[in-house]
Amino acid sequence: MSAQPVLINGEWQSSSSTNTFQATNPSTTEALPELYPVSDWAEIESAIVAADAAAREMRGWPGSRFAAFLDAYADGIETCTQELVEAANAETALPVSPRLQDVELPRTTNQLRQAAAAARSSSWTAPTIDTATGIRSMFGPIGPVAVFGPNNFPFAFNSIAGGDFAAAVAAGNPVIAKGHSSHPRTTQIFAEEAQKAAVATEMPAAFVQLIYRTSHADGARFVGHPLMAATGYTGSREAGLVLKESADKAGNPIYLELSSINPVFILPGAIAERSEELAADFTGSCLMGTGQFCTNPGLVVLLASEATDAFVQSVTAKFSEAGIGTMLGEGVQRSFTAGIQALTSAGATILTGGESGGGTGFSCANTLLSVDGESFVNSPEALQAEAFGNSSLFVVAKDEAQLGQIAESLEGNLTGCVYSAADGSDDALYDAIVPALRTKVGRLLNDKMPTGVAVSAAMNHGGPFPATGHPTFTAVGMPTAVCRFGMLQCYDNIRAHRLPPELQDKNPTGELWRSIDGQWTQADVS
Amino acid sequence: MSAQPVLINGEWQSSSSTNTFQATNPSTTEALPELYPVSDWAEIESAIVAADAAAREMRGWPGSRFAAFLDAYADGIETCTQELVEAANAETALPVSPRLQDVELPRTTNQLRQAAAAARSSSWTAPTIDTATGIRSMFGPIGPVAVFGPNNFPFAFNSIAGGDFAAAVAAGNPVIAKGHSSHPRTTQIFAEEAQKAAVATEMPAAFVQLIYRTSHADGARFVGHPLMAATGYTGSREAGLVLKESADKAGNPIYLELSSINPVFILPGAIAERSEELAADFTGSCLMGTGQFCTNPGLVVLLASEATDAFVQSVTAKFSEAGIGTMLGEGVQRSFTAGIQALTSAGATILTGGESGGGTGFSCANTLLSVDGESFVNSPEALQAEAFGNSSLFVVAKDEAQLGQIAESLEGNLTGCVYSAADGSDDALYDAIVPALRTKVGRLLNDKMPTGVAVSAAMNHGGPFPATGHPTFTAVGMPTAVCRFGMLQCYDNIRAHRLPPELQDKNPTGELWRSIDGQWTQADVS
Repeated sequence: MSAQPVLINGEWQSSSSTNTFQATNPSTTEALPELYPVSDWAEIESAIVAADAAAREMRGWPGSRFAAFLDAYADGIETCTQELVEAANAETALPVSPRLQDVELPRTTNQLRQAAAAARSSSWTAPTIDTATGIRSMFGPIGPVAVFGPNNFPFAFNSIAGGDFAAAVAAGNPVIAKGHSSHPRTTQIFAEEAQKAAVATEMPAAFVQLIYRTSHADGARFVGHPLMAATGYTGSREAGLVLKESADKAGNPIYLELSSINPVFILPGAIAERSEELAADFTGSCLMGTGQFCTNPGLVVLLASEATDAFVQSVTAKFSEAGIGTMLGEGVQRSFTAGIQALTSAGATILTGGESGGGTGFSCANTLLSVDGESFVNSPEALQAEAFGNSSLFVVAKDEAQLGQIAESLEGNLTGCVYSAADGSDDALYDAIVPALRTKVGRLLNDKMPTGVAVSAAMNHGGPFPATGHPTFTAVGMPTAVCRFGMLQCYDNIRAHRLPPELQDKNPTGELWRSIDGQWTQADVS
Repeated sequence: MSAQPVLINGEWQSSSSTNTFQATNPSTTEALPELYPVSDWAEIESAIVAADAAAREMRGWPGSRFAAFLDAYADGIETCTQELVEAANAETALPVSPRLQDVELPRTTNQLRQAAAAARSSSWTAPTIDTATGIRSMFGPIGPVAVFGPNNFPFAFNSIAGGDFAAAVAAGNPVIAKGHSSHPRTTQIFAEEAQKAAVATEMPAAFVQLIYRTSHADGARFVGHPLMAATGYTGSREAGLVLKESADKAGNPIYLELSSINPVFILPGAIAERSEELAADFTGSCLMGTGQFCTNPGLVVLLASEATDAFVQSVTAKFSEAGIGTMLGEGVQRSFTAGIQALTSAGATILTGGESGGGTGFSCANTLLSVDGESFVNSPEALQAEAFGNSSLFVVAKDEAQLGQIAESLEGNLTGCVYSAADGSDDALYDAIVPALRTKVGRLLNDKMPTGVAVSAAMNHGGPFPATGHPTFTAVGMPTAVCRFGMLQCYDNIRAHRLPPELQDKNPTGELWRSIDGQWTQADVS
């Protein structure tokens, strides 16, 4: 059987490499039939050169061109919902409903359409006009973008359909997608639709390209290539940091979404008030999708008390009783048990679970661990190692001061939650902890689990290193997510007719928000 | 004689290091009397630990606190203008008037006051409110910032008074300044005023700190320290890339302004129309400040013709006849001659100058070189090496196609200029070249030399690598320059009374621009 083709420069072509891999059905633990190529360097470089030509061809194109593509692509995806859902279910074991079909796929097409709206309106370009000096600036496209998608969102973060892809295209850039090796067929279906939409909307041949896998060395070389402009990556810290080193050396911006354990502080008044409700909420959030979310609550910080003991017991019981989900793959199962082992070596005690198996296919028992606050403060790094999956670590502080020390010892995270009493009795403690927590997390939540990530202009799906590679940007939410793939372009004394429409005196649509002499307005320059 | 003290944790204290250096008066080439310490690692680390404590102390402080400091500091600087100008003149040989006293110092206090205004109004925080989801976000401070100033702007880019310093403070961060070793006394005077202002406005002890010099290894360790949050650096590419590697590895954002040769395209119609005016403008811009500007026009691209030959001859004559300025130091003189040597080795011919000396103190002859377009296109990297100072390289293309190839082969630059005929006769050629040039430069200019950098919200003093480290930010111009030293902070379902004032329903000042449900407004949330 020959390997599936790669999409290079507008053609589905046989890979020049003979090296192949297969995806595995996590529910059956058996290999899926199709062979996919591991692209060699010559193939990767041909994609880079073609993307560079595409970027040159698109210089000066209006946002409406990219919007047309994004809308056509979203429409195309909706014509093959069934095929996508079946492929993703076979490759990831994520449930068809309510997950893949009803939640993740609509979210994905919604993201593409939000990106289309951002491109069409130019809202992400942030036009800034200084009439006194004659200087005007806005964001413009950065150039060819590499997108590496993760294993856990085969649709919404897919390398050729997800948030980074949508953002890079909205900014007017060609994309080379590196599919995640765990769901190549899903990615291939997307790429087929993307290519059809690209042809239909008359984009350059190499506007969207797809390769499935590379060696680690070639992946690093790829993101550090002088013709590449930027990279979006979602995945493991280890692989991400290899890419970061190469991209950084080349001066190519790289936006990484890496590991995050998403601390949840549950203050005593909240436990006194609604212990059972919290136990149920937390269990639901932590075990949803078998815990395989970047915003999974992997660390719960509590203050020692009898009520806390009861809360821990209640959650432990719920974890023991809950069904065990299937994991995304053998690698996830292996990393999970290694992660649990690392936490116990660092001093944590297993309350329930810890072992492999128990579910259909690749799986591990729902796992809870516990450690005292003093141990945590003494080994904060080891006890913040991520065990990606259906587990969480309870940290029980002996007093309020130690709760504060724990907050100070946290690494950068995507999210941080605080549950407190509705009657205000936790407010002093809240005020003592949150100033530290605020500096450690991209998104701070009250009385809410972190697993939902709304697609909103105000969302920050980001945070300090090592959760991400840059704390000023978000991976979700227009327009900030789009600006990652732009460059700031200033026009100084440029003759009026040569300015891009966004910067001319007349507002091009009458609806574009522009900062003119420090005031945001939809009016023309007067 | 004992070494001058360093400013650590609010105290002017003797350095723990016995290693010292002296500045040199470039006009006399003689050492200035004061000894300054080369800080050892223990001293640097004590500053880092103190800065971290300051950052913790300031969590949640309103922007008005930082504005008060910045305004008091600007006022303080104006009480010692004379002292600053004399010190800077002795240490840099830059003229007192019209440069240091009348231009650079007022610009510096103006920048500090613009930063104060940005901090007071919170305009840089870009509050974004999504009423449908209850999600709100804004920029907040990032943490301790290291600022490395360059040699060529002892005031406006000074590590403890210049643009990066002002931006880092406006964002609410403590700063550890690493003064440039060529002007330690100037930096010391600033630091004395900064510290007085910090005391007067009740800032934490380690809000502003100053060291003068470190080893290269300690400098790298400094910016990569886990307690440091970000770095602003202006200086040589070589030293900057050493810092970048360390900061990148630690995941600490680093904003670098490195070398730039600032290409100027002069199209044939412009030469036909105003050759002499252009020759005079170019000569003035290139030799101003002995060419020691980051935006110095170091590359001029021309189309071969008799008129171009005449233009080149005219500029060559002007360069020969112009007075020779003093350079900032022996290192600049040495790098300059090495740079000229590298360009001639790569195929360029010297039209005038090339040798050291001829002026007062450290100096080199005003230098022009020339190379044909084909050679440039064949060795673009070698022929884009920066010879920082009073020199420029003319590249003469044989035809319009080659002009386009030259534009395509440019590296990232801060600026790119195009001069064209007023009557529109160059417009087709302009349109052929500028789409490529636009992607290579942060600021595009028409009919204007690049050396002036207005402090404007629309300014981009930035550009693609290797001109800077990140193409989405500018080093000059609020609020974008401030956002570099912020982190994006999202609030999800946060109880109303716990939101920062910028994100509460009521607009805190009635004047703060906020994006509410996609519309920029100064109104309250309705």
